[in-house]
Amino acid sequence: MHLKDKYGVVRQRSETICAPLKTEDYVVQPVVDVSPPKWHLGHTTWFFETFLLKPNVPDYTEFDADYNFVFNSYYESVGARVIRTNRGNLSRPAVEDIMRYREYVDKAMLHLLEHELPANLQALVVLGLNHEEQHQELLLTDIKYILGHNPLFPAYDKQRKPAAAPVHDGPEWLEMPEGMYSIGYEGEGFCFDNEQQRHKVFLQQYRISTDLVTNAEYLDFMAAGGYTDFRYWHAEGWDWVKQQQVNAPLYWHEVDGRWMYYTWQGLQPVDGDAPVCHISYYEATAYAAWKGKRLPTEFEWEAAAPQLQWGTRWEWTESAYLPYPGFTKAPGAIGEYNGKFMVSQMVLRGGSEVTPPDHSRITYRNFFHPNLRWQFTGIRLAQ
Amino acid sequence: MHLKDKYGVVRQRSETICAPLKTEDYVVQPVVDVSPPKWHLGHTTWFFETFLLKPNVPDYTEFDADYNFVFNSYYESVGARVIRTNRGNLSRPAVEDIMRYREYVDKAMLHLLEHELPANLQALVVLGLNHEEQHQELLLTDIKYILGHNPLFPAYDKQRKPAAAPVHDGPEWLEMPEGMYSIGYEGEGFCFDNEQQRHKVFLQQYRISTDLVTNAEYLDFMAAGGYTDFRYWHAEGWDWVKQQQVNAPLYWHEVDGRWMYYTWQGLQPVDGDAPVCHISYYEATAYAAWKGKRLPTEFEWEAAAPQLQWGTRWEWTESAYLPYPGFTKAPGAIGEYNGKFMVSQMVLRGGSEVTPPDHSRITYRNFFHPNLRWQFTGIRLAQ
Amino acid sequence: MHLKDKYGVVRQRSETICAPLKTEDYVVQPVVDVSPPKWHLGHTTWFFETFLLKPNVPDYTEFDADYNFVFNSYYESVGARVIRTNRGNLSRPAVEDIMRYREYVDKAMLHLLEHELPANLQALVVLGLNHEEQHQELLLTDIKYILGHNPLFPAYDKQRKPAAAPVHDGPEWLEMPEGMYSIGYEGEGFCFDNEQQRHKVFLQQYRISTDLVTNAEYLDFMAAGGYTDFRYWHAEGWDWVKQQQVNAPLYWHEVDGRWMYYTWQGLQPVDGDAPVCHISYYEATAYAAWKGKRLPTEFEWEAAAPQLQWGTRWEWTESAYLPYPGFTKAPGAIGEYNGKFMVSQMVLRGGSEVTPPDHSRITYRNFFHPNLRWQFTGIRLAQ
Amino acid sequence: MHLKDKYGVVRQRSETICAPLKTEDYVVQPVVDVSPPKWHLGHTTWFFETFLLKPNVPDYTEFDADYNFVFNSYYESVGARVIRTNRGNLSRPAVEDIMRYREYVDKAMLHLLEHELPANLQALVVLGLNHEEQHQELLLTDIKYILGHNPLFPAYDKQRKPAAAPVHDGPEWLEMPEGMYSIGYEGEGFCFDNEQQRHKVFLQQYRISTDLVTNAEYLDFMAAGGYTDFRYWHAEGWDWVKQQQVNAPLYWHEVDGRWMYYTWQGLQPVDGDAPVCHISYYEATAYAAWKGKRLPTEFEWEAAAPQLQWGTRWEWTESAYLPYPGFTKAPGAIGEYNGKFMVSQMVLRGGSEVTPPDHSRITYRNFFHPNLRWQFTGIRLAQ
Repeated sequence: MHLKDKYGVVRQRSETICAPLKTEDYVVQPVVDVSPPKWHLGHTTWFFETFLLKPNVPDYTEFDADYNFVFNSYYESVGARVIRTNRGNLSRPAVEDIMRYREYVDKAMLHLLEHELPANLQALVVLGLNHEEQHQELLLTDIKYILGHNPLFPAYDKQRKPAAAPVHDGPEWLEMPEGMYSIGYEGEGFCFDNEQQRHKVFLQQYRISTDLVTNAEYLDFMAAGGYTDFRYWHAEGWDWVKQQQVNAPLYWHEVDGRWMYYTWQGLQPVDGDAPVCHISYYEATAYAAWKGKRLPTEFEWEAAAPQLQWGTRWEWTESAYLPYPGFTKAPGAIGEYNGKFMVSQMVLRGGSEVTPPDHSRITYRNFFHPNLRWQFTGIRLAQ
Repeated sequence: MHLKDKYGVVRQRSETICAPLKTEDYVVQPVVDVSPPKWHLGHTTWFFETFLLKPNVPDYTEFDADYNFVFNSYYESVGARVIRTNRGNLSRPAVEDIMRYREYVDKAMLHLLEHELPANLQALVVLGLNHEEQHQELLLTDIKYILGHNPLFPAYDKQRKPAAAPVHDGPEWLEMPEGMYSIGYEGEGFCFDNEQQRHKVFLQQYRISTDLVTNAEYLDFMAAGGYTDFRYWHAEGWDWVKQQQVNAPLYWHEVDGRWMYYTWQGLQPVDGDAPVCHISYYEATAYAAWKGKRLPTEFEWEAAAPQLQWGTRWEWTESAYLPYPGFTKAPGAIGEYNGKFMVSQMVLRGGSEVTPPDHSRITYRNFFHPNLRWQFTGIRLAQ
Repeated sequence: MHLKDKYGVVRQRSETICAPLKTEDYVVQPVVDVSPPKWHLGHTTWFFETFLLKPNVPDYTEFDADYNFVFNSYYESVGARVIRTNRGNLSRPAVEDIMRYREYVDKAMLHLLEHELPANLQALVVLGLNHEEQHQELLLTDIKYILGHNPLFPAYDKQRKPAAAPVHDGPEWLEMPEGMYSIGYEGEGFCFDNEQQRHKVFLQQYRISTDLVTNAEYLDFMAAGGYTDFRYWHAEGWDWVKQQQVNAPLYWHEVDGRWMYYTWQGLQPVDGDAPVCHISYYEATAYAAWKGKRLPTEFEWEAAAPQLQWGTRWEWTESAYLPYPGFTKAPGAIGEYNGKFMVSQMVLRGGSEVTPPDHSRITYRNFFHPNLRWQFTGIRLAQ
Repeated sequence: MHLKDKYGVVRQRSETICAPLKTEDYVVQPVVDVSPPKWHLGHTTWFFETFLLKPNVPDYTEFDADYNFVFNSYYESVGARVIRTNRGNLSRPAVEDIMRYREYVDKAMLHLLEHELPANLQALVVLGLNHEEQHQELLLTDIKYILGHNPLFPAYDKQRKPAAAPVHDGPEWLEMPEGMYSIGYEGEGFCFDNEQQRHKVFLQQYRISTDLVTNAEYLDFMAAGGYTDFRYWHAEGWDWVKQQQVNAPLYWHEVDGRWMYYTWQGLQPVDGDAPVCHISYYEATAYAAWKGKRLPTEFEWEAAAPQLQWGTRWEWTESAYLPYPGFTKAPGAIGEYNGKFMVSQMVLRGGSEVTPPDHSRITYRNFFHPNLRWQFTGIRLAQ
């Protein structure tokens, strides 16, 4: 697709995601990790204004000079910003202001994209679109949190069913031989800096499950006392369980002795066949320990991925988020994109039911702190 | 005014106060003490539904059973409720839902008020209206906080000027002789339970200022290093100054060496003649100590009030909020109204520019924790 | 007693109190309100060195210049100091160093006291001794906390019994007529600044209990569900009960269905006849509310005190700690003694089993935050 | 050495380390990571009593049943325990009690060791001794913290100099070829479970520094504004710098414009030639980024170690603490030793000036959270 067309498609999708919302839903930030939907809409627009339009379009007039303060996420080099916990305290700019901001920036961007751009600017536009796709994933994740933590449990879309487990024939475990594997992105298409450089890794022989763990299997773990037996847990996971009084995945509610969970359609009975979702790394590893198994490393995952069905759940791996050999940060603000988060987080691989089409790939590395559950996370076992 | 008419007038005023808001402004809760405007609109309605309609109108159908959880403020006897810090995380019920709720309850209330009610129910309606008037004061206080802490500093009403100091002739200090004074409410009209019982208090001779402290006078205190000299402060006030890095009243910003403050009209230069506003008890007492004066007690204030001009600022007194002799709580949920707050708070007397007309009176007792500044608080000295 | 002799007696008593301790007991600070015993021993010594010796003895050589930083409690005018929560982190100065410090300062003080001092210095010495007596009370209070919160429950003194309730004949309630009463200290002896000025107060007719509430009576409150019924509690008291999971006075432990409490002799069965001890203001007012009574104000207490037996428990009053009419702070550091604490605390009257002999008096005003229980606090009812 | 002799030597060394302390120094816990020295002495003894004597010596009489509560560190399977932050609040058991406890247990252990033990018990004794050696390292680390954070800066040993950088000839960078390397412990001697299993790892070509970074080099980083330029820092490292107001390694104090640091001998001028010490992972990586270099992975370190001089500083690596392929936890309480900490921590390799002789080895894996600095940590660069 031509870049201008691609721009239009991606930008439109953000607004389509928000279409079912009431104005009030755009505003709130129930926990620090969740951003208000209107903030996502503004921030992704700010990215194009700040990195494309302002430096490269000589006669471009900034939409509103105060927006840099409001919509900068974490770029230290681009000035002061609203502290993260404060995003949900801002009633202004209003949703309609942000929609005008989008329209204004889109018009200037589409004008810019009418002409062939130099390669570095094209790369920046592509980065901006991939960035917006990441925020589309976050938009759906955050919207689910906002509605799913409201005492009225409003539906997002009464027709939208949660992802089902893919059906496949064949063996339960994929056998992978010992050997050298190539890891990381190589090719013509887009990738993030953290997927590079492609390099060789030696792996021992291993087996990886061809299925994700289902709700029914996870209920077995719960029934077997998984949340009350410290032996399955990391020490900090065990502290987390006790302090947060966790006894089920996020969004699960025991109602009259039956497990329900919040879905796009509102509160529904838990579907035992669906892959378990919204669990922390602590829970994933505790489940694996209970089964006498483990999680795959990110390298094991990537090596096996061409033979696996994936894409409904982000899958926790037993790899910390660290740089690949030869990793370098881009100069300037764009260099703040990934590298500075490479400590204290775990890698997830795959993609999920809220990942935009064509956004993920086998080398894609997502990363979260081990206690976080609001993403559409799941479990695949290895041994 | 007939009670039914009074009901209509008071209920309408809450909505008029909110008329200049955008939908987004109804939703946020930037600090725990501030409630979202839509919550105020729902909570005041819930009061009538819970205490008047549900117990007394046999065929009344509750608007939505989940609203009790959302709009109960602090009544332990009326069931579980959204924790206070969570009010700003709730996008639903939407503003339009709450407006429908108001309409629904108003219709039922007006129907009820068409007939002569027994005295105890009339008293409950009057209490509900006074309760709503208190929330109107809070609505304006909270709206100012929401807009005044937004980085865009949007105006609430470009025409609405802040209260000016009343002009009066005559001496600066009112001399009050030693003697017995009667304190507390007595009469036919409405009062809160905490204004009773009327009782005798002996006061030493004292003098009380006929004027409130102005911004210009307070700037003198600031210029004299008032915020950096511990000698003027209570120990916990001094801790508060250092921890919060306080160096001016709330809403004040030093812009290019000049003091500005947020007003209904947006950011404006500080008006030296206006009475100082938005200060904590700590600041009020530090200012008084710097002047070699003190604050009046609530009894001194009440005894002198008929000879004073008041009503633009809630005035901090040197009295803790404690029960009067013979104070008793009403039975049931209504008994939770005042008595349970009678610890760790200071009394304010008077009323302010956001107090609804005819809502305050000489015996009225407001109360806040000594660190709070978002109310329209001011300083009157005594010696 | 001659001042020099008095000095010797008071100073010795601090060391006698600590005699049963092991060196380790002098060091720890299990909560912020408790200071390590060695800190009390150093701080009271520092008072004499700082306010008497250094300014008034020309050839006096400071014992150790670093001690000012370590032993200043809260005097802003005397320089920086160890933050309060850090007192228990300091292993040095060691106990033996502090004992040498005491000896060194005592020698200089006794030398100073051999001659007749001017009145202002005599007053400072008397203040220093009263200050040390206050710390003797705190020493016993803090030692009880340190030993009573150790999992081994070591005894302080196996022979020392807790205070028993005084036995008296006569009516249960003392009737006090309406009228003018004089409150505050007047006379030749020592008093703290907060007991002045003596002034007239008008009191309504009231009744005050001639007995303190006993453990047996308090157990009735517990058995009646006093800790689980919000109606008896202030809102902030109720929050405190729930957050701290309070269900009995401090030091009480239910062991095999029977209530035990930590005493000087170690863990003992609760004595039903003894006055209840170690309760917060919240608990005192909740108990009173459950009985349909209230606490006396500090003025009611003082007016009735000559006809009451008191002195085993500090008694919570329904009065906030505020200045008397005409209260003024002394100039300089000594002026920081009392006035700066006159906010957010409640007054206690009487004295307790750990108050040094002749230290308390009818006009004495103690004060604590309403949640604190480690003092030997009790309940006397009024109505 | 025979196991019984080894037992005597190791146990004695713990007491020798504490010999210079005053009784008070054994008691305090200035931050949660630091344990009181007397707790270390008791806990290491508890290990032998709990895992060797009680299960295996039929007529063994427990020294004191309450000690399990006091001295259990983190073994969930061995019952309740003092919460970690509370260790410094316990004045009892006194030091002399703990010394008696050591004597009592040692006597029983030495008796047990007179006979040839089955292999599994021998292994447990060896584990207990290695455990005690780890606590000897912690003892010195914690003692330095306790004394070095005292405002009097007392010396631990006026004769003991800090470790100097080893002098070596030869090139600054060691070149390591691409290839397969074997990682992990294999052999007859003792190792911890986390060093197993030995496995093959493929490494790209790399270079590793033959020297540790010195104080002089680190001062260059400081002078170049290293602590004020976000570009060198992880995002969470940058937050840490700002929140903790970090501007130098732990123990450093700028006195009259000159950098001093606390050493065993008290406060001393910083020695530019000594290897930098007491820095966090955040600081190590920021320094490396400033130099345009990186830290080695733990595999690169282990592969190069036979050709390096090491042992004065624990060296931060760019590897998260994760299980090796085939890692399994031992059954029972001993299985809690290492595995449950394998999340959110970084690996350190080498050993330090406080590591007991013969305690470390090339395959040894230490691990800490990235913000911790009280260990004797240092920096070795790679590229």
